[in-house]
Amino acid sequence: MNTVRDVCVIGLGLIGGSVLRAAVASGRKAWGASTSTSDTEAAAADGYDVVGGDDAVAEALRRAAAADAVVVLAVPLTAVRSVLALVERHAPGCLLTDVTSVKVPVREAVRAVAPSVTFVGGHPMAGTAESGWQAAKDDLFSGAAWVTTVDDDTDLTAWREVSALAVALGARVVPLESETHDETVARVSHVGHLLAAVLASVGAAGGPVAAALAAGSFADGTRVAGTRPALVQAMTEGNRAALLSVVDEALGALGAARGSLASTGGLASTIEAGHEALRRMTDQRNAPRTSVRVRLSAPDARDALLSVGHRGGHVTGFDGDVALADVP
Amino acid sequence: MNTVRDVCVIGLGLIGGSVLRAAVASGRKAWGASTSTSDTEAAAADGYDVVGGDDAVAEALRRAAAADAVVVLAVPLTAVRSVLALVERHAPGCLLTDVTSVKVPVREAVRAVAPSVTFVGGHPMAGTAESGWQAAKDDLFSGAAWVTTVDDDTDLTAWREVSALAVALGARVVPLESETHDETVARVSHVGHLLAAVLASVGAAGGPVAAALAAGSFADGTRVAGTRPALVQAMTEGNRAALLSVVDEALGALGAARGSLASTGGLASTIEAGHEALRRMTDQRNAPRTSVRVRLSAPDARDALLSVGHRGGHVTGFDGDVALADVP
Repeated sequence: MNTVRDVCVIGLGLIGGSVLRAAVASGRKAWGASTSTSDTEAAAADGYDVVGGDDAVAEALRRAAAADAVVVLAVPLTAVRSVLALVERHAPGCLLTDVTSVKVPVREAVRAVAPSVTFVGGHPMAGTAESGWQAAKDDLFSGAAWVTTVDDDTDLTAWREVSALAVALGARVVPLESETHDETVARVSHVGHLLAAVLASVGAAGGPVAAALAAGSFADGTRVAGTRPALVQAMTEGNRAALLSVVDEALGALGAARGSLASTGGLASTIEAGHEALRRMTDQRNAPRTSVRVRLSAPDARDALLSVGHRGGHVTGFDGDVALADVP
Repeated sequence: MNTVRDVCVIGLGLIGGSVLRAAVASGRKAWGASTSTSDTEAAAADGYDVVGGDDAVAEALRRAAAADAVVVLAVPLTAVRSVLALVERHAPGCLLTDVTSVKVPVREAVRAVAPSVTFVGGHPMAGTAESGWQAAKDDLFSGAAWVTTVDDDTDLTAWREVSALAVALGARVVPLESETHDETVARVSHVGHLLAAVLASVGAAGGPVAAALAAGSFADGTRVAGTRPALVQAMTEGNRAALLSVVDEALGALGAARGSLASTGGLASTIEAGHEALRRMTDQRNAPRTSVRVRLSAPDARDALLSVGHRGGHVTGFDGDVALADVP
């Protein structure tokens, strides 16, 4: 088992570019390709190994197949299927991961379009409002949570390879089923983008005087509404099933506040529940942690890994076929 | 007309304490009183003129009556009526302003409880998650917007005195009707507190794994849910009428997103509207400004002042009985 595989990155925007930079910084041999000329030219100018030309993505994938590299799919969700078709054609049987913000739809796309590859989904919880190679940094993933998927059909040897890459890039790995990932990011990311958009619209409806009175709390609550709309649209629409039920929860909670305000005038339960929820999440993040070792060849390895993720733990490294984790 | 009246501050928490500090720093004679022993002791220890003893608030008000000082009511909304009764008793006919976060309910309370005073409502758009004298700063209002109310029965000479005090404390004055103030803060502050509480609750419902995956955008969107619940409850419940219709707008917008996600799967209109709204508000704040002079003795002075506020302008100083404003 080669634990320091070469890395082939398809897509050189903020996340893909940061994967290429961080992989090289970690000592791995790594190359990239993109359909964006501006990103490829900028990456090449910065001295990275970027495959150029009209056939760049196919050529980068053929190199990956020859080197048995891990292929990292770092293209927007809307481009995943077309790139998967190239992977199936030029690097059949490769080890493939991705960095997109939803996991069930990507898994389904892989099954449909690239059935020969060995796939482990991934999602680094890192990003900025910026985009493109110019925003990429080799320490973008330092200390960040990086989900790697553990589904019923996941090959744990492949999972180890992908997770070891995430650890090498500075991240802490959170093993999760694809479905749990999608529900959780709907809660902690996607619904927040919708609420920020709603708050911005309701605020702006107050006209210039609202702009004059808006202060720090409005700026905080609407900050993500400044993200490029196409990016937000792709990730929220791409997580439709999980997001829908979370939006219903938010509507229920806001509707309950409305009902209470209209009837008794009281908002204590809404406000206290939110305050307590925030405190509980902070406590969970700061809870003392215990070291856990999960032998990947053990019969219950899959459940043990998922337990690490569900309890808010992280895999922080590997010792042979043992995953080293810390768990609250 | 004495344009540098003494200042009597009732309530020495974050805002009241900052008013006392900033008033002294601006060269005014100023004193304070509070029913909070910890705040009065801390303020006295810092060398400020604080009236002590069981009868402190009444005594501070009697001094205000004797000196013809402007009285600044800086107590929580829930304590306004009881302090107004003391004002009516010990400083009848004084010039009174306040710094609480809603204006119509305070105006109605003044009319009911302290009908003899000359009242101009005020609200500095400044604050932090902290509270109490220890958090007070003499530059808290530097550059901040400070609403002063211009209602049908507002005495513009009194309005000038109160607004000149706000300018002396470093703020930029936004003249508004009490009703417009309350609707606007419902939009840019109060509904945001409810949305932050809803987001925190929906996030925490995802358990420890949600805490592990929550990143910067979740922290931004839930930050104000960390504010002391009693404070948020007082300001949101105190603005019931205005907040109710703004919450209905937010429910309508979120419901429309939900309907669109469920039917066509599209979220473009919600996301693009939010992005455009944020951009428009930023443009309004950064628009080039023109100087405007409003003579307070002119027959249309009230409308001219309100026009400054409605257009997102500020009064930045006075030249005799002329208010100097900048307007986008």
